[in-house]
Amino acid sequence: MAKKYQIVGVGNALVDVLAKCDDAFLTEAGIDKGVMQLIDTDRAAELYGKMGSAQEVSGGSAANTIAGIAALGGRTGFMAKVRDDQLGAIFAHDIQAQGTDFSTRQAPHDHATETGRCLVLVTPDGERSMNTYLGVSSEMSANDLDVGMLANTDWIYLEGYLFDSPANQAAFYMAANATKPAGGKVSLTLSDPFCVDRHRDAFRAFVKDHVDLLFCNEHEMQALYQTETLDEALDIAATEVETVACTASEKGAYILNSGEKIHAKANPATVVDATGAGDMFAAGFLHGLASGSDLLTCGEMGCVAAGEAISHMGARPETDLKELFAQHNLA
Amino acid sequence: MAKKYQIVGVGNALVDVLAKCDDAFLTEAGIDKGVMQLIDTDRAAELYGKMGSAQEVSGGSAANTIAGIAALGGRTGFMAKVRDDQLGAIFAHDIQAQGTDFSTRQAPHDHATETGRCLVLVTPDGERSMNTYLGVSSEMSANDLDVGMLANTDWIYLEGYLFDSPANQAAFYMAANATKPAGGKVSLTLSDPFCVDRHRDAFRAFVKDHVDLLFCNEHEMQALYQTETLDEALDIAATEVETVACTASEKGAYILNSGEKIHAKANPATVVDATGAGDMFAAGFLHGLASGSDLLTCGEMGCVAAGEAISHMGARPETDLKELFAQHNLA
Repeated sequence: MAKKYQIVGVGNALVDVLAKCDDAFLTEAGIDKGVMQLIDTDRAAELYGKMGSAQEVSGGSAANTIAGIAALGGRTGFMAKVRDDQLGAIFAHDIQAQGTDFSTRQAPHDHATETGRCLVLVTPDGERSMNTYLGVSSEMSANDLDVGMLANTDWIYLEGYLFDSPANQAAFYMAANATKPAGGKVSLTLSDPFCVDRHRDAFRAFVKDHVDLLFCNEHEMQALYQTETLDEALDIAATEVETVACTASEKGAYILNSGEKIHAKANPATVVDATGAGDMFAAGFLHGLASGSDLLTCGEMGCVAAGEAISHMGARPETDLKELFAQHNLA
Repeated sequence: MAKKYQIVGVGNALVDVLAKCDDAFLTEAGIDKGVMQLIDTDRAAELYGKMGSAQEVSGGSAANTIAGIAALGGRTGFMAKVRDDQLGAIFAHDIQAQGTDFSTRQAPHDHATETGRCLVLVTPDGERSMNTYLGVSSEMSANDLDVGMLANTDWIYLEGYLFDSPANQAAFYMAANATKPAGGKVSLTLSDPFCVDRHRDAFRAFVKDHVDLLFCNEHEMQALYQTETLDEALDIAATEVETVACTASEKGAYILNSGEKIHAKANPATVVDATGAGDMFAAGFLHGLASGSDLLTCGEMGCVAAGEAISHMGARPETDLKELFAQHNLA
C-alpha cells in the first residue's frame, strides 16, 4: 500500500523579511554579502530598525522545498517549530495553503522566543544577504517530532541549517530512526558551506550512518570532505552515501549513484545554486524520485525548478511548475 | 518659518495580505470583485483559512499616500492605531523606514483586537478584491491624535475609509480643529463609493465645513452628490470646497479651483483609479502642492505616480518616483 506521504520535510520555520538595499548599506551594517549569518534577538532588532520598508513571505529552506513539491502535486508533510504568534500563523497558513500537512508543537503565546525570521537584504545585482534569527525554531527537539508522520512517508528531507542547534541535531537522529524502520528513506541538504564548517564532524557522522540521498552544492561538498577538488570530494561521498545530487552553478548538477556519475545540464537561463535555487533544485529532484523518474530526469527537473526560483523575489515558486515541466518535456 | 511637516496623514493602519486566486474562488467565497468590503474577526479567520499562500506588505490607503510623498522627499508624519503585536511592528517599521514620523498610541499586547489587516485577492486580470478587518484601527479616537504634529503641518490628509467607525469620525473633527487654527489646511479622500453611500450625510457636512482640498474619483463624487452626471456633481462641489481633484480613469483628472477647471491627461500607460492608483495620485498631487507647483503640474504628477502604482503587486511605490518625475519633466 502506498504511504500517505511521498516527502516529509523537517526544517526551520522562518518568515522572510525582504528589503532592498545598496552595497554601502551592507558594509555599514557589517553584513557579509551573499551568505547566511545567524543573528540574536538584539541584532535582529537593530538590523530591522535600519532596514528599509519590507515585504514578508514565508521561507525556510526545507519549507520552500516542500512547498515546491506540493505545487507539483506531491503528497507532502512538514515539521517545524513556531510560536503561537502572528508570524507563526502566517508560516502555518502558507505551508498548509499549498496542500502540505503541517505538524508543529506550537510554543505558547507567552513563550520567551518568537517565531523565527530571516532578514533578507537584496542588492541591485539580485544577491541576497540573509540574517537569520532562528527564534523558537532552534528549540525544536526530538519531542516535537510527529512520529506517525515520519513512519508514513517514502522520504524525509532534512535541512542542514538545523545542525546549528544541538536540540535540532538530536531531532535529526530521532527522525531518521522513526523513518527507516518503517521503510522510509532519508535525504539531507547540507544547506550552506559555513554551516558545514561549523559542524563538519557531526555532518560526516550523520551522513555516513543515516543518509540515503545527499543534496549539496560544490562548495558544501568540498567543505564537508575538505578536498582540493570537487572530484575528490565526490569520490569520497560515493563511498559513504547511496546517492549524491551535487549542483554546480552554470555547470548544472552531478548525480552519483552506486558508482555511476550522471550529469544534468543547467538550463541556459538558470543559475543553479543562487540562494533559493538550491531549495527548488531539491524540490524538482525529489518530485522526480517520487514520481518514479530516472535520475537524469530528476536532475533535469531540479535544474528547471531552480531556474524558476531565481527569477523573482521570494524563494517559493510563483509560476505553474507543472506547466513549466511540461514545456521542458519533463513528466 | 517653515512648518516641520508638509503633509501629515490620518488613516487606517493595515497590513495587506496578498494572495492570487481565480474568479471561481471569489464566487465560492462570496466576495464582490474589485471592491472593498469590511469583515469581522470570524470572517477574517474563515477567509484567510481558504486563501492561498500570501505575502504581507504594509498598506492602508492614506499610509500608502504618505509613503509615496516620503519617497518623493516630502516631510511627512502619519497617525494611526496599531496594537503591540508583530503586524503592528511591521506597519510601524515600514512607514518609518521611508522617512515618515509615525505617531501612535499603541494598544497593549493583550488588547482584544489585533492590528488591522486587509485580505487582498488578486485575480489573473490584475483586479484586487479587498476584505478589510479593521481590528484596533477602528478604535482610534480623538484622544489618540498627536495634536502637536497636527499643529505643525502645512496640510493634513484624511482617509475617508475612517468614516466607517464613529470613533474615527470624531477624530477627524478633532484633527481639523487642531490643524486649522495653526494655519494648516485639510485634505480628504473619499476612498470608495460604497463608503460614501454608507456615510453620505456625515461626509457632506464634514466636506462643506472643514475640507480645503477634496480627492475623489468620478464614482465617489457622484455618490456624494447623487447626480446623474459627473459635471453636475463637480458643479456642486465647486460651491462647497476650495479645490477638488477628481480622477476619471483613462480620461485623467479634473481639478476645480475657485471656478477654474483644469484637466490633467492620463499617461497613455496609466489607469488612474485602479485600486492603489488613487492613493498614489494623491501622493503625486500633494507632493506637487508642497513643492509649490501649479495645479496642472500637481495633477500630472498625480497621474504619473498613479501609473507606477498599478504596475506591480502592493500599493507602495517600487521604482524611484523622483527619477520617474524627472523623466516626465515634472519637478
